[in-house]
Amino acid sequence: MTAPIDFYFDFASPYGYIASEQIDQIAARHGRTVTWRAIVLDANFQSLERIRIPNNIMRSDYIRRDAERLAAFYGVEYSTPSNLGAHTEQAARIFHWIHDRQPQRGRDFASRVMKAYFVDDQNIASEEVLEALCTEMGMSAEDFAEASANPASRSRLKAEVDMAEARGVFGSPFFIVEGERFWGNDRLPQLERWLASGPY
Amino acid sequence: MTAPIDFYFDFASPYGYIASEQIDQIAARHGRTVTWRAIVLDANFQSLERIRIPNNIMRSDYIRRDAERLAAFYGVEYSTPSNLGAHTEQAARIFHWIHDRQPQRGRDFASRVMKAYFVDDQNIASEEVLEALCTEMGMSAEDFAEASANPASRSRLKAEVDMAEARGVFGSPFFIVEGERFWGNDRLPQLERWLASGPY
Repeated sequence: MTAPIDFYFDFASPYGYIASEQIDQIAARHGRTVTWRAIVLDANFQSLERIRIPNNIMRSDYIRRDAERLAAFYGVEYSTPSNLGAHTEQAARIFHWIHDRQPQRGRDFASRVMKAYFVDDQNIASEEVLEALCTEMGMSAEDFAEASANPASRSRLKAEVDMAEARGVFGSPFFIVEGERFWGNDRLPQLERWLASGPY
Repeated sequence: MTAPIDFYFDFASPYGYIASEQIDQIAARHGRTVTWRAIVLDANFQSLERIRIPNNIMRSDYIRRDAERLAAFYGVEYSTPSNLGAHTEQAARIFHWIHDRQPQRGRDFASRVMKAYFVDDQNIASEEVLEALCTEMGMSAEDFAEASANPASRSRLKAEVDMAEARGVFGSPFFIVEGERFWGNDRLPQLERWLASGPY
């Protein structure tokens, strides 16, 4: 019995979205499962090694073009959101609320949020947009209120972010398997070799 | 007749070294040639979009491990130098001096410098080390002095760095083909698709 792959992502990360379209299949090819872990890589995030990817990189023409090209390379539907860098705390809180109760449903929510943002150019920082997505999934207004704003839901997300910081996560997507860290879609071939034949 | 691929690298960049072991073969598979361009990504480097990879990233445990793993992944001989982050200006000056006269010999010099650093743990910031490498290649002491310290040689490197800045280079390795920028070894599959089937 092998441990699941931890998959960290921020809902506003184009690279996290692109990875989310691939990681489950990669894991399945090697008999592994994936634990999806939404985090918030905002100004409060303090990684173990104090690593921070500067905002001017993420907002550069280079990265904008790179994300579009990478999505095209992998055949993932993608268009640069008009509000790139949206706040993702509320989406992440709702994700964990759902995921803690029904993991598969949590992933479904995550995929819907990312497609709303990276395909349909919706503002995923907006409570109305998030509530509409939850309603589509059959969630009640009461559950939505609890998931999105309850103190327990806030603490749950904070604990997740604290754990990510302590484990040395500093970007999105970020994968940890057997303690080994892999940052970025471009490390997926290395992750896959690890899954296939162990440490190297 | 297609344009050569511009390959920018800093002699102290593990990723530049790993790329240098691959790029010529990739280009050749698509009937292309490569122009090797040594640059110096020090504190004076000002990329077009003011992008700078923070030093604490390059010196982190993550990157140290990542470079070792990447080299193993590609089957490139590599061991982390004890003076990671060595000054590379003199090596870059000598490179251009040779490369402007004999491109193939310039590459040979570049490979020797990188192997001295990333395989044999020699200090490539040392004039003695560089001179020994040049002597091995049959270069005279007069030529070495001119290449390493002549004002013309300094200006030559400065012009190369200025051009890299103006073209939006900000890391190593960095590839430009038909105006399209690719940063990092991990973008080589995308570069290769570009070479195979054009823009996407």
